[in-house]
Amino acid sequence: MTGPEIDRLMTLLGRLPGLGPRSARRVALHLIQKRDAAMLPLIAALSDVAERVRPCGVCGNFDTRDPCAVCADPRRDDSALCVVEDVADLWAMERAGAFSGRYHVLGGVLSALEGVGPEDLAIPALEARCAGGAVREVVLALGATVDGQTTAHVIADRLAEVAPGLTVSSLGQGVPVGGELDFLDDGTIGAALRARRPV
Amino acid sequence: MTGPEIDRLMTLLGRLPGLGPRSARRVALHLIQKRDAAMLPLIAALSDVAERVRPCGVCGNFDTRDPCAVCADPRRDDSALCVVEDVADLWAMERAGAFSGRYHVLGGVLSALEGVGPEDLAIPALEARCAGGAVREVVLALGATVDGQTTAHVIADRLAEVAPGLTVSSLGQGVPVGGELDFLDDGTIGAALRARRPV
Ligand SMILES: [Zn+2]
Ligand SMILES: [Zn+2]
Repeated sequence: MTGPEIDRLMTLLGRLPGLGPRSARRVALHLIQKRDAAMLPLIAALSDVAERVRPCGVCGNFDTRDPCAVCADPRRDDSALCVVEDVADLWAMERAGAFSGRYHVLGGVLSALEGVGPEDLAIPALEARCAGGAVREVVLALGATVDGQTTAHVIADRLAEVAPGLTVSSLGQGVPVGGELDFLDDGTIGAALRARRPV
Repeated sequence: MTGPEIDRLMTLLGRLPGLGPRSARRVALHLIQKRDAAMLPLIAALSDVAERVRPCGVCGNFDTRDPCAVCADPRRDDSALCVVEDVADLWAMERAGAFSGRYHVLGGVLSALEGVGPEDLAIPALEARCAGGAVREVVLALGATVDGQTTAHVIADRLAEVAPGLTVSSLGQGVPVGGELDFLDDGTIGAALRARRPV
C-alpha cells in the first residue's frame, strides 16, 4: 500500500527502542510531510554522528574526540573512577552532576546465562587503569540487579589483587532493587552516590 | 556533556511525534551502538524516501510514483472517491480494506480559529475531480470533530453545486468495534444511539 521505500523506513523506525508499528508510522509520515524542516536535518545529524562519533579509547564514552571531552577535561579528578555498564549510565551520572572524576564503561555486565565473562567486558582494561596507582577510589555505579551486583563483587575482588590500596565502593541507598540507572531521576542518583559504601 | 553532534541528533529525535527527551536519548544511543546494523540502514532508508517520495499529483498520497500506486491501480473503482484529511487517514482506510475506490487528501480541515479556508485545502481540486462526471459517490471520511464536520458540510454544499447528481456521504458514527461503552465519551454514545439499527 505504501510502497517499498516507505515500508522499509517504517520497519527500521519500528525497531528503535520505544517505537512500535503505530509510532513508526506516525514518525515516517511526520518526516515525509516535513521533509525540509525535519527529515533533511535528521539525515544530516545522523550522518554527522555516524561519521564522526566513536567510542573513547580511554573510557568508552561516545564522542567525536578521542580521548572524549570527559577524559580530556583537566578539571576532573584523576584519582576517582566511576565504573558504569554502558554510555547511557555514564550520561545519567553526568546529568546528576554528582561525580567529578573519570569514567570507565564496561560495555555490559557479567552474565552466566548469556555467557558474558570478564574478558568480554572492559574489566582487564579497568585493572590496567587502576594498577598504575593514580586511581585511589573506584565507584561501581552498576544497576541493582543480580548480574549488576555479581559484576560489582567480581570487579572488587579483581581490583583488590591488582591495586591493594584502592577504595572500592558501590552506589548505595536510593537505587531501587531491579532498577536501571538510566531511568532514575537525577536526585536519586545524587543521593545514591553520596551514600556509597564499601563492597 | 555529549558534544554538539550527539546533542543535535537528540534534539531532532526529541521533536518527532511521540518521542520526548528520554526516548530521544535512548534512540540516539541505540543508533550509535548499532551503527552498522541500525544507524547506517536508517540513514539509507531516510535518504531514499527523502529523494524519491513525493505527494501524488492526483490524490495527495505519498509515493515514489506519480500518480501513486492507488491512483494507478486499474482494479480500483473510478466512480467512488474517499475524501480524507491527511495521508495517515488514507493509510488507515487502506488498512481497513473496506474501500475500493480512489482517494482525495485535503491536507487539513477548515478552521476559522486557525484561519484555514477552502482555498488552503485541496477543495478546489476536489471540485474539479468531481465536475468531470466520472465520480458518482463521494465518501467524506473526516474526523468526528467540530472542524471535521464543518468541513464535511462545506464540501457537501460545494459539490452539490458543481456535480448535482453526486451522492455525498460521511462515515457512520457509533461504537468502535470491540469498544466498551464505559470508555466512550457521551457524544459517541449519543451518536451511536441515533444511528441505531435493527438487530
Ligand atoms: Zn573518555
Ligand atoms: Zn494518488
